[in-house]
Amino acid sequence: MAGSYMNKMIMVICTMAFVCFYSTASMASMTKEETQKKAIVLAVFGTTYPAALQSIQNLKIEIEKAFPEIPVKLAFTSEVIRAKWAKRAKDAKWRQQHPEIPEEFYTIKNPLATIANLQDQGYRYIAVQSTHIFAGEEYQNLKAEIETLASIKTLRDRDKPFKKIILGRPALGESGDVYHYKEDIQRAANLLKGDVDIARKNKSALVYMGHGNEIFSTGAYIELEAALRDMNPDMTIFIGNVEGFPQPERVINGLKKAEIKRVTLFPLMVVAGDHASNDMAGNEKDSWKSMFESNGITIIPIMRGLGEMDEWAALYVRHLQDVMTAYQF
Amino acid sequence: MAGSYMNKMIMVICTMAFVCFYSTASMASMTKEETQKKAIVLAVFGTTYPAALQSIQNLKIEIEKAFPEIPVKLAFTSEVIRAKWAKRAKDAKWRQQHPEIPEEFYTIKNPLATIANLQDQGYRYIAVQSTHIFAGEEYQNLKAEIETLASIKTLRDRDKPFKKIILGRPALGESGDVYHYKEDIQRAANLLKGDVDIARKNKSALVYMGHGNEIFSTGAYIELEAALRDMNPDMTIFIGNVEGFPQPERVINGLKKAEIKRVTLFPLMVVAGDHASNDMAGNEKDSWKSMFESNGITIIPIMRGLGEMDEWAALYVRHLQDVMTAYQF
Amino acid sequence: MAGSYMNKMIMVICTMAFVCFYSTASMASMTKEETQKKAIVLAVFGTTYPAALQSIQNLKIEIEKAFPEIPVKLAFTSEVIRAKWAKRAKDAKWRQQHPEIPEEFYTIKNPLATIANLQDQGYRYIAVQSTHIFAGEEYQNLKAEIETLASIKTLRDRDKPFKKIILGRPALGESGDVYHYKEDIQRAANLLKGDVDIARKNKSALVYMGHGNEIFSTGAYIELEAALRDMNPDMTIFIGNVEGFPQPERVINGLKKAEIKRVTLFPLMVVAGDHASNDMAGNEKDSWKSMFESNGITIIPIMRGLGEMDEWAALYVRHLQDVMTAYQF
Amino acid sequence: MAGSYMNKMIMVICTMAFVCFYSTASMASMTKEETQKKAIVLAVFGTTYPAALQSIQNLKIEIEKAFPEIPVKLAFTSEVIRAKWAKRAKDAKWRQQHPEIPEEFYTIKNPLATIANLQDQGYRYIAVQSTHIFAGEEYQNLKAEIETLASIKTLRDRDKPFKKIILGRPALGESGDVYHYKEDIQRAANLLKGDVDIARKNKSALVYMGHGNEIFSTGAYIELEAALRDMNPDMTIFIGNVEGFPQPERVINGLKKAEIKRVTLFPLMVVAGDHASNDMAGNEKDSWKSMFESNGITIIPIMRGLGEMDEWAALYVRHLQDVMTAYQF
Repeated sequence: MAGSYMNKMIMVICTMAFVCFYSTASMASMTKEETQKKAIVLAVFGTTYPAALQSIQNLKIEIEKAFPEIPVKLAFTSEVIRAKWAKRAKDAKWRQQHPEIPEEFYTIKNPLATIANLQDQGYRYIAVQSTHIFAGEEYQNLKAEIETLASIKTLRDRDKPFKKIILGRPALGESGDVYHYKEDIQRAANLLKGDVDIARKNKSALVYMGHGNEIFSTGAYIELEAALRDMNPDMTIFIGNVEGFPQPERVINGLKKAEIKRVTLFPLMVVAGDHASNDMAGNEKDSWKSMFESNGITIIPIMRGLGEMDEWAALYVRHLQDVMTAYQF
Repeated sequence: MAGSYMNKMIMVICTMAFVCFYSTASMASMTKEETQKKAIVLAVFGTTYPAALQSIQNLKIEIEKAFPEIPVKLAFTSEVIRAKWAKRAKDAKWRQQHPEIPEEFYTIKNPLATIANLQDQGYRYIAVQSTHIFAGEEYQNLKAEIETLASIKTLRDRDKPFKKIILGRPALGESGDVYHYKEDIQRAANLLKGDVDIARKNKSALVYMGHGNEIFSTGAYIELEAALRDMNPDMTIFIGNVEGFPQPERVINGLKKAEIKRVTLFPLMVVAGDHASNDMAGNEKDSWKSMFESNGITIIPIMRGLGEMDEWAALYVRHLQDVMTAYQF
Repeated sequence: MAGSYMNKMIMVICTMAFVCFYSTASMASMTKEETQKKAIVLAVFGTTYPAALQSIQNLKIEIEKAFPEIPVKLAFTSEVIRAKWAKRAKDAKWRQQHPEIPEEFYTIKNPLATIANLQDQGYRYIAVQSTHIFAGEEYQNLKAEIETLASIKTLRDRDKPFKKIILGRPALGESGDVYHYKEDIQRAANLLKGDVDIARKNKSALVYMGHGNEIFSTGAYIELEAALRDMNPDMTIFIGNVEGFPQPERVINGLKKAEIKRVTLFPLMVVAGDHASNDMAGNEKDSWKSMFESNGITIIPIMRGLGEMDEWAALYVRHLQDVMTAYQF
Repeated sequence: MAGSYMNKMIMVICTMAFVCFYSTASMASMTKEETQKKAIVLAVFGTTYPAALQSIQNLKIEIEKAFPEIPVKLAFTSEVIRAKWAKRAKDAKWRQQHPEIPEEFYTIKNPLATIANLQDQGYRYIAVQSTHIFAGEEYQNLKAEIETLASIKTLRDRDKPFKKIILGRPALGESGDVYHYKEDIQRAANLLKGDVDIARKNKSALVYMGHGNEIFSTGAYIELEAALRDMNPDMTIFIGNVEGFPQPERVINGLKKAEIKRVTLFPLMVVAGDHASNDMAGNEKDSWKSMFESNGITIIPIMRGLGEMDEWAALYVRHLQDVMTAYQF
């Protein structure tokens, strides 16, 4: 063993002159400027529908327009969707058939990895913007992640991985007294008056299909519905969910009670992807289209993701600005 | 030694090819099996010295040998060192001059990003092994990061980003009653008897240069010194630090009091990199070599990183096994 | 009823004597057995209304009956109410005039102090039961407190201040997939069929006045209302809130649309205290009574706290049992 | 059931006129001033030795002198010691025999309960001062408790149980870059020069018996020893611990090597209680007195708790002022 040490010592000594080139003097260290770097992460559920990507791209463009000096990275919260894109990334034929898909979509990571890679590259100020509709399960999980990352303590303050890591609230707000979710709901209801006009022109009721949730209160949908009704007392308006309360049955019963025969149906989702194409407007037996029709109600489905609307994107821009102001980002 | 280095190199390359295959092949959609995937992250301070990389590679190889079914990823905790490698990654000339450097060294990330990227790829069981000497500042910061990631709560348990994320303790142990750091110190002192033999053959005292710390108790070094002295009562043994207590002055005063004229000097660090080359064995006025010599003490510096010793690597393997057992990883 | 109240009173006094003996007798030094001691904390908003105390006492008695071996301590979450009782404690005249008030009400502390004092006395297993109606602001704050206390880490596991500290969910459940809040809402709706019968006998609609919240989704009320309507399709049923959505205006508009002239009005609160007496049944201009009457609707107010109903108390017993089972308390 | 409701209703209505006296109008609510109330908690390990109480009382008096407007409450971290006092509290004979013991000592609680009871009484600004010698196990556990309490989140900021809850570091400082523990050690070493003078007059070496720790680095003792030696190069000075490194054997070996025959021995503890009386100066075989004497070393034990020294108390005052300044308490 001592002999092997000697050998090692000799080898090391022999390389020392060479090694001297790479001493501390030449080390590129993180300057103050570099650790001041800011980035925005746009957290989207994601979609596998090429046609639905425009909603996401539009959200990104609007955020980039509002914060021209800060790089914006997309993150997909859905593992299933990321896996699908990872598969496509390796499918040369698919890629050839979809020249319109921007490169970045093939490598979008989840929020945690997106944030951590930015941090590794020296971004210490990270603002994450949720693009969820309301503060449901997905948002709570994202918030837990961000708050936990923000709570990492180091022995010296200067070594904290994040100087600031903040999260903008979803479209319909969140609980707490910093921002009043009731105002967010009012604002969102206001933005949807174009949809009301379309339904009015269609001489129909207006129905939205939200995603909803089985395990988390979906009261925000009911409050949005109430706000839309208050603003448009001449119209019959309902919101139902794919998952959880209020169910489509409540919508159908309500429509029947009001003797409605015709409905304009929008997804209340950021993208018009799988849920809009299948659960809402599909031809399967349990699609909303089928259920409504079997109750004698004609539907006019509109495949529009809310993300396509610049005014809706502006809600997220506003929420991002709010949180940046609050935390002096 | 050089031969053994080449052998290890070949092994690394073979292993990497295997790991590559393993990790890309399995990236389709997240089945239950895939979220059971385990990975090991080896957290190293890092080095910019090509010659010192062998210590790190050896640590990795030993960990891989001990856990042949689990992919092992390196992470560098030092931002300065990562920045240097990132610069080299873009320097074609440098890369051409260093064909011996494995590709992976150009893209090593910090522990947070390394962990997050693994998680994004479906690894939900992550074991991080510190390669620090003692539980000082760097280790505490790493531990805070791991514990914080482990504490992320989601509404459903199944959505937790990590099923298990655990951290193996450094070579000289850590506080707490789960593992007794005094036993870790005994074990480490035992491993160093080869060094004692070398110093004895050199008819010299034995001195180690540790890194140390200004802001965190470095008592572990003193306890290691005491253990080495107890085990080798015929020898004069000292540990001093580059930073913090015990300073080199204490070592020099102690040596003078004991009328020692000759010292075998080792770095007490995982790699024999910048500190060993400059602070320890360099010719500048404030190097230990210069300080000792100006006090009439001849030094025999040995450029050996502890990571080169398989027995030292085995300490980390043991600590990793311990934490895996404790958490049923 | 008064007789049953007296009986309960006697039982409380008997139980208290027993509990007193139990807790003082065991206060010597901390043997292993003693750190196994369990206690229940019943977290109530509180009331200053002597007559409303029976609801709280009843809840306590039902919990004590279900867990006869575990001492039960009351805690008031309302600082205003605690301050009022602290004032009364020093008011000899008031106390003389209220011989029916059990001693313990004069010294009830908030949940944090109640828990900490039990811990100081060697209780390391503490189960807190919320007596809130739904998982609103008060419950979230209480939960944050309990979860934070549960997360205190010590160097040795045996020194953790709490072996287990757990929290039972409110009557209408909470988000997450451990317990399904929709089932909790069904169960609660079921329990209220006696109220529906009263309203039916009164040839009136049934209206509940909940407390509600401005800053936290109150969707649970809407889902309870929907469940009550589904179970009793012949009845007109509304829930409105003192604070937040759905407002009394929504109730009044709905009643007018349904051409209802007569309403049986209950508080949807654990105690029939200040809100029931004033906001609901008071004669001030902005009381629900006045508002409804000025809209031509007669009200029959019923001053019943839900806590008086053994079946409602049984909900909390069940939730406490659930969390004890889940955590092997 | 309906009948019982009617009865309850009648009873409630009958008491309503009476009840009206106690409405919201008269509620004493927490005014802004009251929630601005500040308190100091002095966290002491505790002692059962009546004679040793003077150290604790002196610490309290010095803190009170320094912060005359803020109430100071004692807390004992030792459960065994609290239990002993609780037993004495009920022992009329013991109390009669010890008229000198202040009432408060019979009811001292642990830090958590002390803090929580203050919070319940409206103190939202709480500064805890550790009276530990160094940042060992006890201090880390206390710190974890305080930091956890400080991290409780509520939906509204105004409802946070603590506006500020802070902790002053122990005598020999703590890790981190906010306060430099090396300076704290220098300051403490300076204060002990009176002890050095006593030892010098005694023509003896100076030895301290610290408490120490088996599971947490006790390097601070070694650094204090080094500082004392540097300041007093003419003196032989050692620190040993009851528990953990450095053991008394190291002290005895060192004394023998230096041919010391006479030692002045102080406890390095805030109180001269059980450890000083028994482990240090007792006559049992394994006391330091016996061990030293059997090695031919005469000891002059001095039963002085550091808390008796106003200068030592001033260290804690200073640390409390530091943390108050840092957090704008």
